[in-house]
Amino acid sequence: MHLMRIGAPGAEKPVARLDDEHYVDMSDLTRDFDEEFFGSGGLDRIRPIVAERAAGGDVSAFAGERVGAPIARPHQILCIGLNYRDHATETRQAVPDEPILFTKSPNTLIGPNDDVRIPRASTKTDWEVELGVVIGRRTSYLNSLEEAREAIAGFVVVNDVSERAFQNERGGQWSKGKSAETFNPAGPWLVTPDEIADLLALDMWLDVNGERRQTGSTKTMIFDPYFIVHYLSQFLVLEPGDLLNTGTPPGVGMGFVPPIWLQPGDVMELGIEGLGSQRQNVLGPR
Amino acid sequence: MHLMRIGAPGAEKPVARLDDEHYVDMSDLTRDFDEEFFGSGGLDRIRPIVAERAAGGDVSAFAGERVGAPIARPHQILCIGLNYRDHATETRQAVPDEPILFTKSPNTLIGPNDDVRIPRASTKTDWEVELGVVIGRRTSYLNSLEEAREAIAGFVVVNDVSERAFQNERGGQWSKGKSAETFNPAGPWLVTPDEIADLLALDMWLDVNGERRQTGSTKTMIFDPYFIVHYLSQFLVLEPGDLLNTGTPPGVGMGFVPPIWLQPGDVMELGIEGLGSQRQNVLGPR
Repeated sequence: MHLMRIGAPGAEKPVARLDDEHYVDMSDLTRDFDEEFFGSGGLDRIRPIVAERAAGGDVSAFAGERVGAPIARPHQILCIGLNYRDHATETRQAVPDEPILFTKSPNTLIGPNDDVRIPRASTKTDWEVELGVVIGRRTSYLNSLEEAREAIAGFVVVNDVSERAFQNERGGQWSKGKSAETFNPAGPWLVTPDEIADLLALDMWLDVNGERRQTGSTKTMIFDPYFIVHYLSQFLVLEPGDLLNTGTPPGVGMGFVPPIWLQPGDVMELGIEGLGSQRQNVLGPR
Repeated sequence: MHLMRIGAPGAEKPVARLDDEHYVDMSDLTRDFDEEFFGSGGLDRIRPIVAERAAGGDVSAFAGERVGAPIARPHQILCIGLNYRDHATETRQAVPDEPILFTKSPNTLIGPNDDVRIPRASTKTDWEVELGVVIGRRTSYLNSLEEAREAIAGFVVVNDVSERAFQNERGGQWSKGKSAETFNPAGPWLVTPDEIADLLALDMWLDVNGERRQTGSTKTMIFDPYFIVHYLSQFLVLEPGDLLNTGTPPGVGMGFVPPIWLQPGDVMELGIEGLGSQRQNVLGPR
């Protein structure tokens, strides 16, 4: 399934996308794609209903609605740092021995084509295309990678927007540079695992103003999503609907010599093979 | 007002405490003390009703109910590191030039007298009595300390339980050692600002097995709560009901030579002048 949330911010309707033109409305079956939905086996519950409605012609046509993030604001957004070998190299940092964990404020979540706003006093706002993992059940102390696989509801494109001065020059803990409003575009779709043939061979890309900046593949991840979910479950409890940003491939602005930072008026376009694409206009500070 | 949530985990009832024996039930006025309550002016709304019911004798007697955290699970728990000059010294770290921000998973929140569980594979579980600040309104880019003061709903005792090996020896980002289940006891009460004569002169203490380990005062904070709220609002958006742990005074286990770590069977007791006290039994890993 491809799950989407369409409509105005805060009033999105949960739907299952059939193709670029058509969807099946899910709003009579669940209030939202949120913690309660995932935690109560919502995916399994709607799957046969989506198939039945699609087969019976109970479908709707997209009519230019805004696309929201495909999940409601999660309990937490966890992020893994330096998880692509080449990205660690470009930022002149050591390849980590184990996943590095940091967080973003959950209210950074926005739709895939919403505006991204440069924070006040920012000098170094940067981009990061990433594979996002959505957790499907309450998850703690997993025993195996197979259990980790079963704990995943699906995958999504995310842009882990980052302010590098706030992240790296203001005390050493990264969350300060990751949590400004609009800093986590996600979507357009949550793609369930059965729809992805090889999770570890997905092409990824990001353009700024039409110029290719990031080119990568999940092939070069240091720690794969199953390892990460298993690993994190040893340290904290993952809730249904939690979002996990799994790191970015090479080509972030910080990695260029001299570095390149986002400016008001820039346009970011990014995507992951099979997971759709995003487009954000960059605005100046409020 | 002293706000409390009493009853079984997940089914707490919101009440206003009058004294050690009596409370006024608020459950007909709000579902919970949560983001919606604080964000919709709930404190101002219930204040005259609490007074009216107390005056009219519409009160209840505590009957040994479990005490929950005084707020529902927040959108985020933000923490400030090394915010007492003597604590920075005892942990052999430099006094910071500006607040250090890290986070805890919101699902670490538990009641003030609930059990604290040592995580699996832990070798260095530690305690931290802290002044917790609860945010009262959506807050971004505050212009002054006075605006920060107005953005605060109240204050609460928290125990910022920490696993020092996870925090300091597993990649450098602290959140990994702060987010294990049960790691954020809070309460017993949320005390509104009007009930606190001098926020910056509150005694704080923490005992382990009856032995005094932490003795401090908010007098020795490096950055006071108003400064911190103003500061954080420049980097991220605070939501109503967000919890902010403002750092711990000297006497954590990590600071002793040799260090002292929590063991199953230990008992922590802690409190802050005017904000009440907590008592947690320490359990071994699940």
